[in-house]
Amino acid sequence: MNTGRLEAFSDGVMAVLITIMVLELKPPHGTDWAALEPLTPLFLTYVLSFVFLGIYWNNHHHLLHATHRINGAILWANLHLLFWLSLVPFITGWMGENHFAALPTASYGVVMLCAGVAYYILQTTIIRADPHSTLAAAVGNDLKGKISPVLYLAAIPLAFVHQLIADAIYVFIACMWLIPDRRIESRLNRDERV
Amino acid sequence: MNTGRLEAFSDGVMAVLITIMVLELKPPHGTDWAALEPLTPLFLTYVLSFVFLGIYWNNHHHLLHATHRINGAILWANLHLLFWLSLVPFITGWMGENHFAALPTASYGVVMLCAGVAYYILQTTIIRADPHSTLAAAVGNDLKGKISPVLYLAAIPLAFVHQLIADAIYVFIACMWLIPDRRIESRLNRDERV
Amino acid sequence: MNTGRLEAFSDGVMAVLITIMVLELKPPHGTDWAALEPLTPLFLTYVLSFVFLGIYWNNHHHLLHATHRINGAILWANLHLLFWLSLVPFITGWMGENHFAALPTASYGVVMLCAGVAYYILQTTIIRADPHSTLAAAVGNDLKGKISPVLYLAAIPLAFVHQLIADAIYVFIACMWLIPDRRIESRLNRDERV
Amino acid sequence: MNTGRLEAFSDGVMAVLITIMVLELKPPHGTDWAALEPLTPLFLTYVLSFVFLGIYWNNHHHLLHATHRINGAILWANLHLLFWLSLVPFITGWMGENHFAALPTASYGVVMLCAGVAYYILQTTIIRADPHSTLAAAVGNDLKGKISPVLYLAAIPLAFVHQLIADAIYVFIACMWLIPDRRIESRLNRDERV
Repeated sequence: MNTGRLEAFSDGVMAVLITIMVLELKPPHGTDWAALEPLTPLFLTYVLSFVFLGIYWNNHHHLLHATHRINGAILWANLHLLFWLSLVPFITGWMGENHFAALPTASYGVVMLCAGVAYYILQTTIIRADPHSTLAAAVGNDLKGKISPVLYLAAIPLAFVHQLIADAIYVFIACMWLIPDRRIESRLNRDERV
Repeated sequence: MNTGRLEAFSDGVMAVLITIMVLELKPPHGTDWAALEPLTPLFLTYVLSFVFLGIYWNNHHHLLHATHRINGAILWANLHLLFWLSLVPFITGWMGENHFAALPTASYGVVMLCAGVAYYILQTTIIRADPHSTLAAAVGNDLKGKISPVLYLAAIPLAFVHQLIADAIYVFIACMWLIPDRRIESRLNRDERV
Repeated sequence: MNTGRLEAFSDGVMAVLITIMVLELKPPHGTDWAALEPLTPLFLTYVLSFVFLGIYWNNHHHLLHATHRINGAILWANLHLLFWLSLVPFITGWMGENHFAALPTASYGVVMLCAGVAYYILQTTIIRADPHSTLAAAVGNDLKGKISPVLYLAAIPLAFVHQLIADAIYVFIACMWLIPDRRIESRLNRDERV
Repeated sequence: MNTGRLEAFSDGVMAVLITIMVLELKPPHGTDWAALEPLTPLFLTYVLSFVFLGIYWNNHHHLLHATHRINGAILWANLHLLFWLSLVPFITGWMGENHFAALPTASYGVVMLCAGVAYYILQTTIIRADPHSTLAAAVGNDLKGKISPVLYLAAIPLAFVHQLIADAIYVFIACMWLIPDRRIESRLNRDERV
């Protein structure tokens, strides 16, 4: 079984998620600057979630590009990742509308942590199905993948100290991941050259 | 006519369905644990429906992977399946918001039963179009496909005795199907080896 | 330029349309049979629109299957068709919620008539780009394509006499089209055999 | 890395955007002509945004058709374009519901200007990755691409003089772009002939 339809379905789900999030941004009733002001935190949360979903799509793209064999376990590991990502619009809306509250901010970290763990499970499942693949070698020392959960685990309780600390950590993680996964990319290029 | 565009359209519909369901999960107005509590049954129903749609996508993936010829009857049998699946977000929202009521819980079973029957019709239509296919041999004794409708037929009246009995049956069916359809998968692998 | 991406985009739009329509079906607040009763006309309209969108997808599938060359005019004729189809969820909601009123019922016919005209323009544009194609021969005497607009033109004023007359005509047109376009299908099969 | 999955994801996002916009068009409660009247400006704004998204899809189609190599920078330039396009349903709803107000009308221009700049960045990133491509030669003197931002920059302050001036400029830009990008198309045909 090849990766074609798995990629198509994942692309479909991620494309819908990244766009229905905008439905949380409801057009205000007023028409002056004051009407836009309460939307600012929601808009900033939307930008953050858009970037996070973009990062997942990019990394998912690289991950499956280096994969050749699909089995039932990989299908379910992929659906598990999509499940946590599907909660992003909900948690974005809750955090965006309650940006001064600790619990929504901490919950955002919980959903992101679970999505990160699900991504790690998917990666491990793929490597287990084909241990001698390019991917197995490329993710050898997955530094960013190891730091992110630690940062989320720190951000979740810190949201109860002050939600801005957690927000700053989320923005930091997004910036860290914005740099695409050059390990896989460069390894793939090297293999193709060989 | 090959299966490419039928798969693409079905993937599109199922990807949208599995993600718009989350729109039923509306961000609460409060920001404490008490605000999340009323969402719990809706969230659990969401998880159940996500798993059911995931099962349908997985099985649909296996079914069409073993199919090579498409005709008008298969196109309509497929749309008929998508119709019943399209009611899942509606019925999830109704059951999730009224988890102590019998009728929404029983209706969930009715929609799932109809989707199961529609899947059976699709499978039969595909086999009739190509009776000597791998698929025809693989689904020879479709045990899970025969037990599921019996279980739904039991769950629907039992929801009026106590809705938790029906809920338990739905969870049991989901768990039973979570194991991917190894019959088709193993048969395909065997044929490819030969 | 080949038809691949045009089909993918059209499939995407039609897959989203056929599924977001269900968002008009809002879960009722009550939990007894009486709560479902007001949903009945909306549900029946939903079924009708689902069938109409299914017909358009099926015919679009056949139409582009017989097409090999795409130009700018075809891209825009296709977007024009998608525009009218995009109004189907809106008009379904309006007619479904006001099933005893003449104007929503007549408007449903107007949107369907415009979609039909847009499909005819798309078909003509494709044939003009490649006049010696299989398609040009296959649609030689397009009986259903000629009857449908006449029926819609009759249904629109008749909705103001009694909306049930218009409803009956819409159901009749849907039934007429449910039979897939065997002209193109059989002609394609014949050509492939030759 | 080839363009296949980038096109599929972009098609998915644009297909969802062009269709969820219709969710801003809520079925009115009344059933007479008076009930439709307040929807008129929203409907006209919907048509305008549909055309703009159609133009972006068409041009994106031509752009990636002339592209053969994808890298991380192109992936992010593409996501940046999709981000601005994702705000179109929001801004369409706000401008459509407040068509006599200056700020929503000006904001529409801001979103469109940003989308135009993002498209320019994507085009430049693609050319930089492959400077000897067909695309680099074809967009040599990109007249429409240079006029559009100037027109948007004029429309934004003019919305505060009278919103109809800005509306007229938006309609003019849409009409200007409706003519597909024949430069790339004709250059591609010429190259294929050679």
